[in-house]
Amino acid sequence: MITLRKPRIVILGAGYGGLMATTRLQKMIGVNEADIVLVNKHDYHYETTWLHEASAGTMHHDRVRYDIRDVIDRSKVNFIQDSVVEIKTEEKVVVLENSQIDFDYLVVALGGEPETFGIKGLKEFAFSIVNVNAARQIREHIEYQFANYNNEEEKRDERLTIVVGGAGFTGIEFLGELTNRIPELCHEYDLDFHKVRLVCVEAAPMVLPGFDPELVNYAVSQLERKGVEFMLGTAIKECTPEGILVAKGEEEVKEIKAGTVVWAAGVRGNSVIEKSGIEAMRGRVKVQPDLRAPGHDNIFIIGDSSLVINEEINRPYPPTAQIAMQQGEVCARNITAIIRNKTELESFKPDIKGTVCSLGEDDAIGVVYGKKVFGAKASFMKKMVDNRALLMIGGPSLVLKKGKFNIL
Amino acid sequence: MITLRKPRIVILGAGYGGLMATTRLQKMIGVNEADIVLVNKHDYHYETTWLHEASAGTMHHDRVRYDIRDVIDRSKVNFIQDSVVEIKTEEKVVVLENSQIDFDYLVVALGGEPETFGIKGLKEFAFSIVNVNAARQIREHIEYQFANYNNEEEKRDERLTIVVGGAGFTGIEFLGELTNRIPELCHEYDLDFHKVRLVCVEAAPMVLPGFDPELVNYAVSQLERKGVEFMLGTAIKECTPEGILVAKGEEEVKEIKAGTVVWAAGVRGNSVIEKSGIEAMRGRVKVQPDLRAPGHDNIFIIGDSSLVINEEINRPYPPTAQIAMQQGEVCARNITAIIRNKTELESFKPDIKGTVCSLGEDDAIGVVYGKKVFGAKASFMKKMVDNRALLMIGGPSLVLKKGKFNIL
Repeated sequence: MITLRKPRIVILGAGYGGLMATTRLQKMIGVNEADIVLVNKHDYHYETTWLHEASAGTMHHDRVRYDIRDVIDRSKVNFIQDSVVEIKTEEKVVVLENSQIDFDYLVVALGGEPETFGIKGLKEFAFSIVNVNAARQIREHIEYQFANYNNEEEKRDERLTIVVGGAGFTGIEFLGELTNRIPELCHEYDLDFHKVRLVCVEAAPMVLPGFDPELVNYAVSQLERKGVEFMLGTAIKECTPEGILVAKGEEEVKEIKAGTVVWAAGVRGNSVIEKSGIEAMRGRVKVQPDLRAPGHDNIFIIGDSSLVINEEINRPYPPTAQIAMQQGEVCARNITAIIRNKTELESFKPDIKGTVCSLGEDDAIGVVYGKKVFGAKASFMKKMVDNRALLMIGGPSLVLKKGKFNIL
Repeated sequence: MITLRKPRIVILGAGYGGLMATTRLQKMIGVNEADIVLVNKHDYHYETTWLHEASAGTMHHDRVRYDIRDVIDRSKVNFIQDSVVEIKTEEKVVVLENSQIDFDYLVVALGGEPETFGIKGLKEFAFSIVNVNAARQIREHIEYQFANYNNEEEKRDERLTIVVGGAGFTGIEFLGELTNRIPELCHEYDLDFHKVRLVCVEAAPMVLPGFDPELVNYAVSQLERKGVEFMLGTAIKECTPEGILVAKGEEEVKEIKAGTVVWAAGVRGNSVIEKSGIEAMRGRVKVQPDLRAPGHDNIFIIGDSSLVINEEINRPYPPTAQIAMQQGEVCARNITAIIRNKTELESFKPDIKGTVCSLGEDDAIGVVYGKKVFGAKASFMKKMVDNRALLMIGGPSLVLKKGKFNIL
């Protein structure tokens, strides 16, 4: 009797892309066809697109995450909780912090990292909304600033100033949540609402680049009405323990004192990619149409570390959950095809159903199936988008457990 | 027609003593007999004896306070929200931060202050459980330490160390609450419970001096079982931003690294007393039997800034809410008597009904009407003691609103 060694598929990362690939593979692949191994740093998946809520403190972080073992089929998928150190592409080995693992097929879905563009002090003194640990740290940091205010002989108003670097998707959504959270914090600590400053600093001359101007105007006026100050065309030159230094064009450098600085202006690919010698630009790999890394026929790269060009405008698609999940599905089908010795692989083509940007409770802007929406309707659509991600990965039971039903 | 000027009674402080004096005076004194003015820094009264719960985070600080205007009769009492700077005893004037006020009769019920005995760094780097602002700051400081832990490349276990200086009433009750709070915090921030240290440092050789030894043993073993480390006969030599330096007897000085240090070892009288030239020892005035300050026939001093000797053991009574409230009642009766031109004033004699020290949820030790109690029964008695204070100051409606009913 000859025992044929089954091929081993290893998926790195249980974010939107990795978890989607895993749940699709466990359905498509028979137990005798291949071994499936999922590696993730934590034993939970978190909704990256909800982290701004946990960071502002408007949603508890436990609502933002769920146990990975609740959505994987443990008879088919072997889950390893560990951090990835390096991929040895030639040896087909992934080095983890506590062990290493061989692979035949690899799905790299490790997610992005904040890009600080070499701005001095950002890494040391600014927060980034990157994971559950960071989100609850930001929430507690802001709350601690507010809790300290009334205890000091000399009141330091900058404790109540929050600077958000970047007016992209994350920055705007975080500001929207903060406008809901600040009145609660003022009530909690007996503080004057008018002493709080929410400042958004953006180097580009506009908010939410690429979005429809009418919707952008709506977003800006809604947030300004709730107290957000926008400083557009203004670059952060440095971050210090006291706040930030900014400059508008050629104007003189100015200091904004702030107890909290959150950097939400840039995402790059994962540094493991570069450490492993895979060709990339800022950690993002320009993948082949079938999602494989050029020169690596057994390595698929999906999610924030992959780069796919939008031919219509000849620019890369932004890294989003929507694209990561669609890539997860295509990648699962392609791996199944390879294992079954099919020669033709599917090409990935994003199907952008819509983009909705939240502006806090019951307000949002967006384009859904080509139609502009804003206000309560957009907010409803946003919640449906969030629920859809749960449905696709974990089915109806996960939607019931973790879904957003606080709809009008 | 001659308008006689009504005498003015001014009460400084709306703690247990001041608020009891006010509510009794407003019942006893007719509108035509005298004007009553109450001065307090905040527009709320807080339960000083519950602050350890708000500080640990086991009870929200809003449950620990109530609006002063809910318990005073505004047709009879004029409430001024301001801070007391100085009492000019000769001129019969109280200088406030924003104004000044004349008085004919004064009740000084300003409460105590932490006594740091000149230990270096305690004022700067240790917290004290002194008021609502401080309590929520301590709660948030501890939570912030726990929230930061997992975000640091190199884990600093001292972030999870809490040092309590002093094994008196406040220190022990605070430790009891912390033993309930720590498991919640570990769950909230995904931390290993065994990395947390609760250290109680006490210069005296025993816990809860003056308490029955059998009850003390029970308290120590219960707290030790829940993870508290006691360092008795050990003096805090210095507090630093990193923790504390301690020495046991003649032994070498040792460092305990700690993210949080709470000083709960000493109470002194109010510094306004000394600033006003009233004779005092550590801010406490050895009052006459009728509660008047020696040499000041129109100034009554009650609560933590008064000093009454327990003749049985020839030592001062400890500053407690029970004594402050009883003093408030006697002082109100004596002022009424003076205004009505009675010559005989009542002498204050504490009636110690009992003392119960909480050890966290559903556990306590105490002596009530001369009987030792511990465990759930003592915990029940403690809640009844707390409810009694509400009843005496604000009547049944305040008990219903703010009372403790989480009884077995």
